[in-house]
Amino acid sequence: MAGNSFGTLFRLTTFGESHGPAIGGVVDGCPPGLELAPEDMQVDLDRRKPGQSRYTTARREADEVKILSGVFEGKTTGTSIGLLIENTDQRSQDYGNIKDRFRPGHADYTYTQKYGSRDYRGGGRSSARETAVRVASGAIAKKYLKQFHGIEIHGFLSQLGPIKAESVDLAVVNHNPFFFPDESKLDALDEYMRDLKKSGDSIGAKVSVIAQNMPVGLGEPVFDRLDADLAYAMMGINAVKGVEVGDGFAVVEQKGSEHRDELTPQGFASNHAGGVLGGISSGQDVVVHMALKPTSSIGVPGNTIDVDGNAIEVVTKGRHDPCVGIRAVPIAEAMMALVLMDHLLRHQAQNAHVSCSTPVIPAQK
Amino acid sequence: MAGNSFGTLFRLTTFGESHGPAIGGVVDGCPPGLELAPEDMQVDLDRRKPGQSRYTTARREADEVKILSGVFEGKTTGTSIGLLIENTDQRSQDYGNIKDRFRPGHADYTYTQKYGSRDYRGGGRSSARETAVRVASGAIAKKYLKQFHGIEIHGFLSQLGPIKAESVDLAVVNHNPFFFPDESKLDALDEYMRDLKKSGDSIGAKVSVIAQNMPVGLGEPVFDRLDADLAYAMMGINAVKGVEVGDGFAVVEQKGSEHRDELTPQGFASNHAGGVLGGISSGQDVVVHMALKPTSSIGVPGNTIDVDGNAIEVVTKGRHDPCVGIRAVPIAEAMMALVLMDHLLRHQAQNAHVSCSTPVIPAQK
Amino acid sequence: MAGNSFGTLFRLTTFGESHGPAIGGVVDGCPPGLELAPEDMQVDLDRRKPGQSRYTTARREADEVKILSGVFEGKTTGTSIGLLIENTDQRSQDYGNIKDRFRPGHADYTYTQKYGSRDYRGGGRSSARETAVRVASGAIAKKYLKQFHGIEIHGFLSQLGPIKAESVDLAVVNHNPFFFPDESKLDALDEYMRDLKKSGDSIGAKVSVIAQNMPVGLGEPVFDRLDADLAYAMMGINAVKGVEVGDGFAVVEQKGSEHRDELTPQGFASNHAGGVLGGISSGQDVVVHMALKPTSSIGVPGNTIDVDGNAIEVVTKGRHDPCVGIRAVPIAEAMMALVLMDHLLRHQAQNAHVSCSTPVIPAQK
Amino acid sequence: MAGNSFGTLFRLTTFGESHGPAIGGVVDGCPPGLELAPEDMQVDLDRRKPGQSRYTTARREADEVKILSGVFEGKTTGTSIGLLIENTDQRSQDYGNIKDRFRPGHADYTYTQKYGSRDYRGGGRSSARETAVRVASGAIAKKYLKQFHGIEIHGFLSQLGPIKAESVDLAVVNHNPFFFPDESKLDALDEYMRDLKKSGDSIGAKVSVIAQNMPVGLGEPVFDRLDADLAYAMMGINAVKGVEVGDGFAVVEQKGSEHRDELTPQGFASNHAGGVLGGISSGQDVVVHMALKPTSSIGVPGNTIDVDGNAIEVVTKGRHDPCVGIRAVPIAEAMMALVLMDHLLRHQAQNAHVSCSTPVIPAQK
Repeated sequence: MAGNSFGTLFRLTTFGESHGPAIGGVVDGCPPGLELAPEDMQVDLDRRKPGQSRYTTARREADEVKILSGVFEGKTTGTSIGLLIENTDQRSQDYGNIKDRFRPGHADYTYTQKYGSRDYRGGGRSSARETAVRVASGAIAKKYLKQFHGIEIHGFLSQLGPIKAESVDLAVVNHNPFFFPDESKLDALDEYMRDLKKSGDSIGAKVSVIAQNMPVGLGEPVFDRLDADLAYAMMGINAVKGVEVGDGFAVVEQKGSEHRDELTPQGFASNHAGGVLGGISSGQDVVVHMALKPTSSIGVPGNTIDVDGNAIEVVTKGRHDPCVGIRAVPIAEAMMALVLMDHLLRHQAQNAHVSCSTPVIPAQK
Repeated sequence: MAGNSFGTLFRLTTFGESHGPAIGGVVDGCPPGLELAPEDMQVDLDRRKPGQSRYTTARREADEVKILSGVFEGKTTGTSIGLLIENTDQRSQDYGNIKDRFRPGHADYTYTQKYGSRDYRGGGRSSARETAVRVASGAIAKKYLKQFHGIEIHGFLSQLGPIKAESVDLAVVNHNPFFFPDESKLDALDEYMRDLKKSGDSIGAKVSVIAQNMPVGLGEPVFDRLDADLAYAMMGINAVKGVEVGDGFAVVEQKGSEHRDELTPQGFASNHAGGVLGGISSGQDVVVHMALKPTSSIGVPGNTIDVDGNAIEVVTKGRHDPCVGIRAVPIAEAMMALVLMDHLLRHQAQNAHVSCSTPVIPAQK
Repeated sequence: MAGNSFGTLFRLTTFGESHGPAIGGVVDGCPPGLELAPEDMQVDLDRRKPGQSRYTTARREADEVKILSGVFEGKTTGTSIGLLIENTDQRSQDYGNIKDRFRPGHADYTYTQKYGSRDYRGGGRSSARETAVRVASGAIAKKYLKQFHGIEIHGFLSQLGPIKAESVDLAVVNHNPFFFPDESKLDALDEYMRDLKKSGDSIGAKVSVIAQNMPVGLGEPVFDRLDADLAYAMMGINAVKGVEVGDGFAVVEQKGSEHRDELTPQGFASNHAGGVLGGISSGQDVVVHMALKPTSSIGVPGNTIDVDGNAIEVVTKGRHDPCVGIRAVPIAEAMMALVLMDHLLRHQAQNAHVSCSTPVIPAQK
Repeated sequence: MAGNSFGTLFRLTTFGESHGPAIGGVVDGCPPGLELAPEDMQVDLDRRKPGQSRYTTARREADEVKILSGVFEGKTTGTSIGLLIENTDQRSQDYGNIKDRFRPGHADYTYTQKYGSRDYRGGGRSSARETAVRVASGAIAKKYLKQFHGIEIHGFLSQLGPIKAESVDLAVVNHNPFFFPDESKLDALDEYMRDLKKSGDSIGAKVSVIAQNMPVGLGEPVFDRLDADLAYAMMGINAVKGVEVGDGFAVVEQKGSEHRDELTPQGFASNHAGGVLGGISSGQDVVVHMALKPTSSIGVPGNTIDVDGNAIEVVTKGRHDPCVGIRAVPIAEAMMALVLMDHLLRHQAQNAHVSCSTPVIPAQK
């Protein structure tokens, strides 16, 4: 079945391969009247874009997004927004050698078996290049959420291999190449990455995203729960292998008396739940964490088979990120924005007449 | 928006509250020709059903499922299957006292803010009682997957509070009240739970589900990825706060040379990925873990507010599970079955002409 | 694929066969706070119900609807509404003789080929009995549209065989067994139907539905157009073979200067468009007509084949309507209500901030 | 809600306005392995394209489609296909004068009320220009249906104003500028159109589409019926006001003994049903007719109001088709192809194991 759309009311449909002429997408359901220009998306595209530091792939893409429709005289019209990003730095010749082999840890084997063949250039559709379109459309959602509802979304790298952020200072996140919130660890990160690159290996990472100034009531109770949709969104980012909401896996060893967030007339006393109760936003910060695996495109030789089933050795020589988690930060923010935007519209659909009620307790992080 | 349906091609739509006359649902998209009787669902319903041991709620429900349509002369007809389970042991009077207060850790506050009011009897729609219908419909999917494709799904409790399963023996799972796969820990579990009940508190847990004998090719590449849909399904189970596929959060500290599952002519050399590559099943076992929070319905007094915002104290006196993770095992299996069934139909839709191709490497766990 | 759901935001999912234990459905997406009781649905169920006059089938069904969920203390809660109607007057033995034959004009042949078998009792899932659930859920939508937006929906039989309504008086529609709006033709209808029954034959009909007090702006511009969704809804009613919006097929011979509805400061000067422009409601009455074929269940012998392909003769002896168009009136109203309700919610989702703008010209029929 | 997608399993999502930089879309769900090049779509795009004869608008668009993704080494890969058609002959200055007025019969008024503003250049999103993308994607479906299943789709103009086709010769349809199937009427058409253009007026038309070599079993029984989806598809084409399947509105005056298509061992004896029984294809030709209104963009002055509600006069001076029905022929074919393709995939999803069964009676037109 068609698997290239995300969201129901605010829906993104994407197309494009790593080494085709262009990638792009259609954003459907954007409310009319939002001021929108390519620059609104470019900020996040630049944050995601490769070649920004020596810690990410050397591929250089302008990642310049064009708005082909849905915006008139500077504002969204309510009709579908066509987005286009041209691929400019494809080096397909880099990939001729993987045509007939299945790289371990990649989608080569599964695509070939599923479809009978695959576009082997740079991973084709399975390349993380597609996420540029998610970032562009997420920026539209971000802008709307901020402007019309005051909601703000912040992502950061909370752990890179063994190095964890001990403190979270959102102000420093966008001022270092790691999107790291703990300035005291920047030197350690720098050193770790330098050594890693030398070894030709790659490393996993943990990314966190927070939504602040949340309204109460976003999310559906049973199946289209806000937390379930966030899990779906984040697990759908390339390389993600785990998703947590609030305390996540720590709850396994928690007691009920410890976990439950007590309510007071001044607001919630804690936020173990991560801002979601019964699938619905509680007005607290929505907090999500995710684990990203180390990329399998590494310089360390590995065993695999070719399309005929023969054992061979593979070494990746293309331009790759030693830690794909870093560039995933703006992607995770975009996915959070898309989910919140969709739930905001859903909520308005069914609860238009109650949605403006004042919460019993004040908004709180 | 409508939030009571799960799946696209094999779709479950549920209704019903904890203390209404009945719960039920519609299973849409079931292929014709599957032999189906209530007994096929009853096995799993009985595993999920409350009152099975002293470690679960004392509420007693027959949880007897009726097939109202879609089955004729013992076989599915291809039309929608109506399922009904009557509520027989409601004690709504137990809940009069929570009418005007928001229990911490529950959906009371978010429902009230979202909808302007709520059915306060036993949590109404937010009650885990609704999951009985998921279990019933999951049993249909399970039967089809097993019978037509040989796929088997097994769930178990991999951790309860501090007690972890050190080994996994699927054969013992259904022969102890904890669905625990490590027989050597049963006494410890028993003791832990006895103490816990005495204290009036509750505890979190970790549940794991495995699908064996998987075909290659289930899952869509970009948004409707198999892993993303599994994350959505599991995070949508009441109390779940984290989901992992394969190595999950352990990947944060893994190197690429360690994580990537090498391929050999005899199959994959390891299964760090948990059976999914690029969002598509690889033919290896699909492995999913999830974290369930401790229930907030406990005998330990806690602080909260009433609907007017006044500070009050709350103690839960109803009949509740001290560890909701235990009964989540059959629910998690059901959700895995629903996801695989949906993806199987999706795959057939688009790839009917390639779906019968023989995998290059042999199927492997 | 799952084919038993209607609508996106206000979504009905139905189940049930003509001769199973019950039919029913789930209404998902109903806004909270609507007063709802079975009686609200019973009015329309009684209008649709068989056995109301000597011109409809003699099958007698109480068609009593039960609300199983989604309503608490007399009001909708915003969660899914479970509906159940028990079948009480099945005479399955009537159908044993059609088990192995394909009745011409029925779905017997297509179901058997599609699914490999069929529930032959009374047409199984293809029976118009399923429409009772549409009528029940449509009544919920009707009530909401009327109460919250003043929208009213009226259906009537505009033609029965050769007898056309020359005038439309909505006040008489519900006071004759034909739902006919032209009192002067009632005797002619009576006579025609008496003769028809004697001959054992059946006759086609035309049904019209009008929505009054429409807001401007319902409908999406390109694919989810209001007129397209109405066409889908009406063509999906059993026996419907044609649908018109506004002037319908008469436009083929109209000129542009004649068809276009001019605007004046007092409103539109005419309503050839039937209340829809560019797929979006204009604030004028929405006007839809549909053609219903004569039922193929007649006493006149006809040729067909059995399941082995042998030529045989078939005569229908069950209890059938000589003109299925009559009872289609409340069904068509229900479908109109479901479509408008869905589009109302869609509109609120995307255009919440503009939806309360005052139309430039006054509302007009 | 998002209203720019068509179909479920084979899904088209479009974007683009009449006078923006480009229009385009994403085709999602196309099976892998189909040979596809722009030329496959260009044939139908050229048939739809303006400026082909003196009877259509003088706007000249190359309508050259680019494939941006989803095709590799000449074959579809199973991933989403990005399509782009640049707008080259926009003359937006033509439209400055309608900026502040509502053209009667157009979507100007409804768009403005719905969204709070509108892209007034050439109708913006409401322009039939968007249908070029439908035609392009329909051509993909057409090719697949033909190549893998032998299904052929033919459209033609069955009536233009008062001039009806008395006979249908598909061989002549593509050899006259009217797509008319009755050669004997070509001179009359020519004369009629010449007079019409002189008068500055426009005329309605009737378009028919036939699908030949149909398999039995496409369509779902209750809501996603093949006939309902066709009605939805056709009513969604700009200017369509009525849709018929098979005998359509003629059934109103038919008797059951006349309408029912008898079955014989050699096949159906007639095709009043238009190839659909109970919502499912019967293997006979699928026959659909639709009525298209005369365009409201005419040289004859008319009354309307401006955005402030003042009465004004309007005359259209742009480049317009005097009979939009003509160019609707390839659009209607495309929509038929999209619907059949979607239902083919749906059928494969649920009934993979029965779909290869041999029909009891031979295929027949």
